[in-house]
Amino acid sequence: MKIVELSGGVGGARLARGLSALEEVELSVVVNVGDDERVHGLYVCPDLDTVVYTLAGVEGPEGWGRAGDTFFANEELARFGVDNSFRLGDRDLALNLFRTELLHRGEPLSEVTRRIVAAFGLTSSVLPASDDPLHTRVRIEDGRWLSFQEYFVTRRHRDRVVELDYEGAATAEPAPGVVEAIEEADLVVIGPSNPPLSIWPILAVEAIRKTLQAHPKVVAVSPLLGGRALKGPADQVMASLGLAPGNAGVVEAYDGLIDILVVDQGDATDAGRLTGVDVLVTDTRIPDGPSARRLAAEIAAP
Amino acid sequence: MKIVELSGGVGGARLARGLSALEEVELSVVVNVGDDERVHGLYVCPDLDTVVYTLAGVEGPEGWGRAGDTFFANEELARFGVDNSFRLGDRDLALNLFRTELLHRGEPLSEVTRRIVAAFGLTSSVLPASDDPLHTRVRIEDGRWLSFQEYFVTRRHRDRVVELDYEGAATAEPAPGVVEAIEEADLVVIGPSNPPLSIWPILAVEAIRKTLQAHPKVVAVSPLLGGRALKGPADQVMASLGLAPGNAGVVEAYDGLIDILVVDQGDATDAGRLTGVDVLVTDTRIPDGPSARRLAAEIAAP
Repeated sequence: MKIVELSGGVGGARLARGLSALEEVELSVVVNVGDDERVHGLYVCPDLDTVVYTLAGVEGPEGWGRAGDTFFANEELARFGVDNSFRLGDRDLALNLFRTELLHRGEPLSEVTRRIVAAFGLTSSVLPASDDPLHTRVRIEDGRWLSFQEYFVTRRHRDRVVELDYEGAATAEPAPGVVEAIEEADLVVIGPSNPPLSIWPILAVEAIRKTLQAHPKVVAVSPLLGGRALKGPADQVMASLGLAPGNAGVVEAYDGLIDILVVDQGDATDAGRLTGVDVLVTDTRIPDGPSARRLAAEIAAP
Repeated sequence: MKIVELSGGVGGARLARGLSALEEVELSVVVNVGDDERVHGLYVCPDLDTVVYTLAGVEGPEGWGRAGDTFFANEELARFGVDNSFRLGDRDLALNLFRTELLHRGEPLSEVTRRIVAAFGLTSSVLPASDDPLHTRVRIEDGRWLSFQEYFVTRRHRDRVVELDYEGAATAEPAPGVVEAIEEADLVVIGPSNPPLSIWPILAVEAIRKTLQAHPKVVAVSPLLGGRALKGPADQVMASLGLAPGNAGVVEAYDGLIDILVVDQGDATDAGRLTGVDVLVTDTRIPDGPSARRLAAEIAAP
């Protein structure tokens, strides 16, 4: 069975690991690149790395970075007056140095990612949504446009988001293999990621959106539970962008794209009022590997 | 008293620390940049960093890198098939990330170095010989030209050197302050560095050589002891380039530039045969701070 998952960071990465653990599943994960940014001159891809590290089972305790990593380089940067609030671990730096060097030499991000996936011995494929520049920008209440990392990491997503822009998306092409993977997939899963911040940047690539629209079975996993995001600011961002509260807002966010919405059992009542999609009610919390495998198995069940 | 030292790596750095510890000495160290190279996309300056770290008293046990540094990033690079034989420590990486980023933004190396020196709270000034590209290249017996790091680090200076080239030197300008520092110096010291590999690249900058030639008091410390280099391949390189063996070769290497040669007490006999320079015979071994201060004091004595 061929499955494609569209993924942001931590939640999507955990579900990907669950899907990859299923027997006879060939998984391709199409990952958000809107958060990618230069940090200390390095080309950092937070969501791609979270997916790779999680698939490899070496992810950090909070879901990002590497398990057991040290931060000696990052701490030392403070000596030079450098803002080191984006915390890059020492082992994580190696991957970022490797990627940055290959990108400088002209290799596309998808090819560099393929090498990284191979270096970790993964059997799933991990594809950036696009090899082209595509940057999520966030306008906050005072009117300023911030880069995603400035909004999310530096200012700790404390600002109300009034508008989003996916800079470059209009001309960005899907990375090689993305459209083909979706076309050939028996099932497309949209991970429990932040719809506007993590999935919309992927869907902002026209050819990806169109291929998804044409797909007969697209399942989205709601990132909300009792109307709140389990992690991150999804609920606040959705509300400030005018989406309905709760899972109705998730259906709106994926309007016309999804066939099934997976909602948490705590939201069974709310789920009964959803229209336009089929609903699968289950336990959507995936704090660990076994729970992610269970959820993955339910989603992949015929 | 104003002193300028021309320095390569470890030996020159140790003497610099000794000189900087003298009372009422204002020290400027003019440092070889011929070994500078891109490593994993980072702009690495081995001699500048050895001088800064040693002046700050945080140098590693073998003279290069940082004391107590870890190598987690460097080790992890092996996962990606990257040649990690040039060992960059994690704390050392921070400095290299900082420098590379500022150079990318267009700051000259001398200005970046000034910031680094300030970050370590040093009172001496550390000047790259030039802000312009200047790369030592080494031709080995089979006819191939190697970069300095390939010769020195990757191949561990095992090849016989038949020719040297200081690429870019013909058009390189001295970094701001270098010529002025030499002109104003009461004393210029050429550190116990490898003459062809560490000092000649500095002297290859025409304006530096001319200013040195005009200086009334230039003292060189021989890097040889009993005809052998205390560290590194100076004796072999000097021999294969046709310089006389022992300290006579050092005098030849600095022909017409130096007024005094400091030779080790073990070479007192050899020293008696030197012509064209005054000779100061003393203990030139500087394995630690106190010995470096003692040697520095002898050299700076009126």
